[in-house]
Amino acid sequence: MSTETFDYKYFNVTFPAEHVAVVEINRPEKLNAFVEEMWHNLSKIITRLSLSPTIRSILLTGAGRAFTAGLDVQAASQGPTLNTGASANSDPARLALHHKAHILDFQACITSIERCAKPVIVLLHGISYGLAIDISVACDVRLATADARLCIKEVDIGIAADIGTLTRLPKAGVSMSWVKEVALTAREFGAEEALRVGLVSAVLPDKTKGIEAALDICRTIASKSPIATLGTKELINYSRDHTVEEGLNYTAVWNAAMLQTGDVKSALLSGLQRRKPTFEKL
Amino acid sequence: MSTETFDYKYFNVTFPAEHVAVVEINRPEKLNAFVEEMWHNLSKIITRLSLSPTIRSILLTGAGRAFTAGLDVQAASQGPTLNTGASANSDPARLALHHKAHILDFQACITSIERCAKPVIVLLHGISYGLAIDISVACDVRLATADARLCIKEVDIGIAADIGTLTRLPKAGVSMSWVKEVALTAREFGAEEALRVGLVSAVLPDKTKGIEAALDICRTIASKSPIATLGTKELINYSRDHTVEEGLNYTAVWNAAMLQTGDVKSALLSGLQRRKPTFEKL
Amino acid sequence: MSTETFDYKYFNVTFPAEHVAVVEINRPEKLNAFVEEMWHNLSKIITRLSLSPTIRSILLTGAGRAFTAGLDVQAASQGPTLNTGASANSDPARLALHHKAHILDFQACITSIERCAKPVIVLLHGISYGLAIDISVACDVRLATADARLCIKEVDIGIAADIGTLTRLPKAGVSMSWVKEVALTAREFGAEEALRVGLVSAVLPDKTKGIEAALDICRTIASKSPIATLGTKELINYSRDHTVEEGLNYTAVWNAAMLQTGDVKSALLSGLQRRKPTFEKL
Amino acid sequence: MSTETFDYKYFNVTFPAEHVAVVEINRPEKLNAFVEEMWHNLSKIITRLSLSPTIRSILLTGAGRAFTAGLDVQAASQGPTLNTGASANSDPARLALHHKAHILDFQACITSIERCAKPVIVLLHGISYGLAIDISVACDVRLATADARLCIKEVDIGIAADIGTLTRLPKAGVSMSWVKEVALTAREFGAEEALRVGLVSAVLPDKTKGIEAALDICRTIASKSPIATLGTKELINYSRDHTVEEGLNYTAVWNAAMLQTGDVKSALLSGLQRRKPTFEKL
Amino acid sequence: MSTETFDYKYFNVTFPAEHVAVVEINRPEKLNAFVEEMWHNLSKIITRLSLSPTIRSILLTGAGRAFTAGLDVQAASQGPTLNTGASANSDPARLALHHKAHILDFQACITSIERCAKPVIVLLHGISYGLAIDISVACDVRLATADARLCIKEVDIGIAADIGTLTRLPKAGVSMSWVKEVALTAREFGAEEALRVGLVSAVLPDKTKGIEAALDICRTIASKSPIATLGTKELINYSRDHTVEEGLNYTAVWNAAMLQTGDVKSALLSGLQRRKPTFEKL
Amino acid sequence: MSTETFDYKYFNVTFPAEHVAVVEINRPEKLNAFVEEMWHNLSKIITRLSLSPTIRSILLTGAGRAFTAGLDVQAASQGPTLNTGASANSDPARLALHHKAHILDFQACITSIERCAKPVIVLLHGISYGLAIDISVACDVRLATADARLCIKEVDIGIAADIGTLTRLPKAGVSMSWVKEVALTAREFGAEEALRVGLVSAVLPDKTKGIEAALDICRTIASKSPIATLGTKELINYSRDHTVEEGLNYTAVWNAAMLQTGDVKSALLSGLQRRKPTFEKL
Repeated sequence: MSTETFDYKYFNVTFPAEHVAVVEINRPEKLNAFVEEMWHNLSKIITRLSLSPTIRSILLTGAGRAFTAGLDVQAASQGPTLNTGASANSDPARLALHHKAHILDFQACITSIERCAKPVIVLLHGISYGLAIDISVACDVRLATADARLCIKEVDIGIAADIGTLTRLPKAGVSMSWVKEVALTAREFGAEEALRVGLVSAVLPDKTKGIEAALDICRTIASKSPIATLGTKELINYSRDHTVEEGLNYTAVWNAAMLQTGDVKSALLSGLQRRKPTFEKL
Repeated sequence: MSTETFDYKYFNVTFPAEHVAVVEINRPEKLNAFVEEMWHNLSKIITRLSLSPTIRSILLTGAGRAFTAGLDVQAASQGPTLNTGASANSDPARLALHHKAHILDFQACITSIERCAKPVIVLLHGISYGLAIDISVACDVRLATADARLCIKEVDIGIAADIGTLTRLPKAGVSMSWVKEVALTAREFGAEEALRVGLVSAVLPDKTKGIEAALDICRTIASKSPIATLGTKELINYSRDHTVEEGLNYTAVWNAAMLQTGDVKSALLSGLQRRKPTFEKL
Repeated sequence: MSTETFDYKYFNVTFPAEHVAVVEINRPEKLNAFVEEMWHNLSKIITRLSLSPTIRSILLTGAGRAFTAGLDVQAASQGPTLNTGASANSDPARLALHHKAHILDFQACITSIERCAKPVIVLLHGISYGLAIDISVACDVRLATADARLCIKEVDIGIAADIGTLTRLPKAGVSMSWVKEVALTAREFGAEEALRVGLVSAVLPDKTKGIEAALDICRTIASKSPIATLGTKELINYSRDHTVEEGLNYTAVWNAAMLQTGDVKSALLSGLQRRKPTFEKL
Repeated sequence: MSTETFDYKYFNVTFPAEHVAVVEINRPEKLNAFVEEMWHNLSKIITRLSLSPTIRSILLTGAGRAFTAGLDVQAASQGPTLNTGASANSDPARLALHHKAHILDFQACITSIERCAKPVIVLLHGISYGLAIDISVACDVRLATADARLCIKEVDIGIAADIGTLTRLPKAGVSMSWVKEVALTAREFGAEEALRVGLVSAVLPDKTKGIEAALDICRTIASKSPIATLGTKELINYSRDHTVEEGLNYTAVWNAAMLQTGDVKSALLSGLQRRKPTFEKL
Repeated sequence: MSTETFDYKYFNVTFPAEHVAVVEINRPEKLNAFVEEMWHNLSKIITRLSLSPTIRSILLTGAGRAFTAGLDVQAASQGPTLNTGASANSDPARLALHHKAHILDFQACITSIERCAKPVIVLLHGISYGLAIDISVACDVRLATADARLCIKEVDIGIAADIGTLTRLPKAGVSMSWVKEVALTAREFGAEEALRVGLVSAVLPDKTKGIEAALDICRTIASKSPIATLGTKELINYSRDHTVEEGLNYTAVWNAAMLQTGDVKSALLSGLQRRKPTFEKL
Repeated sequence: MSTETFDYKYFNVTFPAEHVAVVEINRPEKLNAFVEEMWHNLSKIITRLSLSPTIRSILLTGAGRAFTAGLDVQAASQGPTLNTGASANSDPARLALHHKAHILDFQACITSIERCAKPVIVLLHGISYGLAIDISVACDVRLATADARLCIKEVDIGIAADIGTLTRLPKAGVSMSWVKEVALTAREFGAEEALRVGLVSAVLPDKTKGIEAALDICRTIASKSPIATLGTKELINYSRDHTVEEGLNYTAVWNAAMLQTGDVKSALLSGLQRRKPTFEKL
């Protein structure tokens, strides 16, 4: 993977361990606030990593003091959607069709994380507002540093969050009373509260420790059969959105092919021989 | 709102803050136990507040020592559904049709809280049995006082809870093992346990503090754009019951119109000018 | 019930209290690891108890030091599904159809616990790996002893768990970030962690105390109207997999018949007379 | 039933046969075009007939030369929804909330036909435009006279039909290619075409014959056990919107109570004795 | 297959062509009316044929003058469900649980036709009442002879059809207006009407021609790759009950394994060489 | 639109009438058989037309004697999916992941027709095999010429159709018995049969008449408000895949914005003034 160039504005992509990619949001001078180019770039990066035959897990983090302050509202207010000036198109129906297309496109970029075949671990640190939550709930495992300040900020600019937060949080295994409270009030909450309700699964003392812990998880996943870990992500995501009966049937059809992998033999033999197994590329 | 009369037996409706309504169950001499007139009145009150152009959030509480002891079983046992005497209609199929109609009507009254366009905050205190849980899980944010005694009481009178508890709890972000344990055993549990599992999102030391905390949430919500908060409630409720993909699409269609509100401009300008925004009536 | 013989290899079935059955996995010399005969036997036992007119609750536990170490991988690797040798049928499509049929059959055996009309309480102790999780998430209430060591072990043998763990955990009211972390890494976790995230609803100091606590729940359930407890299990399970609106309607149709039971009268009268009610056989 | 007064403006309600009601839209001077009061009245009538213990089937027809020309567009264009003048509320988001509430209310009135416990037979004759289709697809059995002129007219006034036509037609067992063609082009089609595609199940030569045929169906239904016919309507409607598996389970729960009716005995004995059975009131 | 014995009371099972089984209902002296043993036997036969490595298509027909007159009502009225005498268990709730279990068991027997991996072609001839429709709508392809007399008979004995007719007909691509008319009135209809509405896909002049035509279809299916035909049945059935998006995804997962079959090569080569391909056993 | 170049290999795109585009498959020397580049190009063309502010309806047709003979099997058998030679990747699980990705990509190209905001009318003529059906069922209105020869051909090459035929046909309002018969046997059927079952909504004598009829429909649609026709397509497609209740709610949210269009006023005034309305670009 390291021989390919991942040159996307506002992002650093590195490969610190075998089969592991790190994607770093890199616009620290603006607290990693997102302009439109950024969500398109993030989607392109994730999609390429999803297709890579060698990458098996991904860490998503942010450069500087914040994970991200969310949407760059100043930039957005110049654009068509949050444009507070006069619109070129004054027919509300036509404008609605344009808004809908824009939101669906924005959502699709963030959903590419969920659709990514490989597990994505996110580390939230510092300011993690608005879009930070939309992004993190599309990731598979969420960690936070002790200094993380989280907020579903959207009601403060007059809108209901529409890039995934309100859709994915009700399925995140988190108290719905709490979800509504923080979404309706836009109050900030910290890492410990996020851990208590289960939004994140660990809190680390600082960013260095956080990156370390996240990379540990990435490396562990990367050491397993990718047939097993990719299937695990797919089947959990599928099951979240279907009845138990449908989930079981889909699982059976999925594993009907996947059990034929040579990885089972490799894993079993390595287990018997107490050595680390290696697995083919995807 | 204050000029309209909300004169419903067993309920007090007051407006202690701008855009905020407080609905108090008021049959304290019977621990606020519900007779049929009460659930119809509660539904009428909530539906009127839902349609009010000025109300933006609602606090639901109970007068006296208890939130509610639940269904007034003594009264109910005189009525057709739990009537333990001889039935006028002895054909079990026809009786079943009558029971079904009665349950659906009762459910619809409580569901009017969930359908209410405006967020409803509930404070549970003292005895909060049976119907108290059905009602509270239809609310958006749940708080409890330290003395609250909660119980899914229905199995103790030979029935499975049918007014919403068993339907909404599995989607409340609460441990399912715990849900089944308390629903199957009818054991009482306290506020701290409710907080630990996420059924409520805060515990307050007493009723005065509880009302204060709940009103704080109500006032905060009322200070935001109602387009944003109503949308937030709607989109979370919709997403709870649909796949992530359906939730995202619905969100896009919803916000296609809602982003056209002038509230975004008001909120953004107020943010820049560091003043409190005001928003039009609905 | 005690007069019927429950003679199934690898299982002990006893009736220590009225209306209560205890099913003990009994292959302690192999840490209760499962061979194919065992999941078929478990299913037969549970199905018989489900149909029994006298049994009202069931405790599932394991003999010896472990609840179960999961699938007996050694045995399985001799069989057709995880067979690491040459396959008799080398057409991948035909092999996939065989795998699918085998998985569906295995799943159906474990699902018989969820389908069992009577509530099933499970006590996890000691090693509780792989299939232990698949089984326990099909149960209604989960308890653990302090020494329990839990693990979603499947990725370590190159497969995604396919007997229910990945399908039911996303609906167990447990942090999804945590679910993915433990499922993707196969790391072991203890009873306290399981309690914190809500996978189990209580931790008991040792197995004796655990059995006692589980039997207490069983006896409490057995003392209630079986019409009420069976309905409670059915309605919670149904609601988990449907929208709130569908759940409410199903509940109304269900209770349309169930409210006609004489148990309501028995329960109400006993309540008034402060004595323990008795209820007819099913 | 005949002793109760059904006095609703724009409608005649008569009871020409035992257990049978006829609802006639009665604004012939305007081709039965609908003003708002009419859909509310239709809903009230249908809901009362649904609850009547004696009525078992309903015929819906129109007075004069047309079933209905649809929405009274002239009247509607004075109202808030299709008002082509300046709106009192110029915020598109708030206006959207008002439109949504208005559409949902209008839909609910027409849906009361589908929700009506008793089967509704509709006879389409003469002009049957726009709302005529929305109404008829909410009915159970559709007949037409040879002179019927049908049209999904809405695109001709710049809107997508929103009172049920576009939602129910895709589930009416009618060619989807045809549905889209007539909905997108607003072309008129006749009774024979409607029969060929299955939108109606019979074509009668004229209105007199049509009423006769529809009443025949009504009388036949009214001669059967209402437990059987009400269940049949409910189970078909439920199944249309659910998987086969869910439909089967719901059917089993429904009939678990309904099979206990005395009507089975009455019907069986009457069959043996070759006489017409009589069934209790609901 | 011919060497195995298929010895089930009331059924003849023969193998008139390679890979083709014929199942004949054989109780002609009672117009093939069903007693409980028969639906259990039908299910056993179909399940065995489903698992057979050699059978690829199945013809279902009836001996004598009728396909089946439906449930043997006389026998059923002696049994617990339609028993018109006094019930041993007089508690309506307990009785409902027994009814539910009985209906689900009966349904499961008929559903085994739909679950059968191999396509089932049914020929309806003569009297085809009640259960005849439940059975035929669980089959894949329906043919009728010109003399067939069909009827959804259940309302005539006071019940809503509960073994599949009301659940599967709304998804059979048949006019819903017609479905409701014939289900609510229990009127008889003939083969030509069944063809016109699409319930059957061909009408044959008599039983001999009907068997011939049905066997032709069976033989054609049996000449194709079983991987292709089994997949075709599975994917159509799945899609009927899911959204298009879910259907497409399931199809992709299904064919991910199935495209690996050697049958594709065999079929392609045979096509090029203009000879009949042969395919491995399942 | 005419000033933009639509230069895609194997396709001609023309604009014979205002707001109308014609897309012609153009590989007549191979009976318009599809190679991979073609489905990607088709998707690109349709997506551009979907976004065009001026195009309001689309005609899809084929150059030469056939609509399309389907997949170019010869070309495909050289590629990775139907490759009958040795695979580079011999691990069946990894191969399955590649197949799945390939099928999903292929499906997405065809689904772009269904997702296209503008109605697509398809004319089937001559050979219309395999992929021809997958494509046409993703279109909105289907016409055929008298000489059309249709066939779900896939089982003849050993596979179950996976690009949409098996998924969309069960929701096309077409007899399911017929669908299964033609899908399982791969028998050819003609235009009249397709009309009888409702797969197409009209049969025209020859290609010239067919194009004329299809263009008539396109022009009619193009003369209506695009807000109305786009909404009609969206709401029918949505409703096909959801319950009636969900369809009605979605419709209300959709039209909440769309009713604000100026097109309603234009359409109503034009109606009163008996002149042809004009509507703004999208």
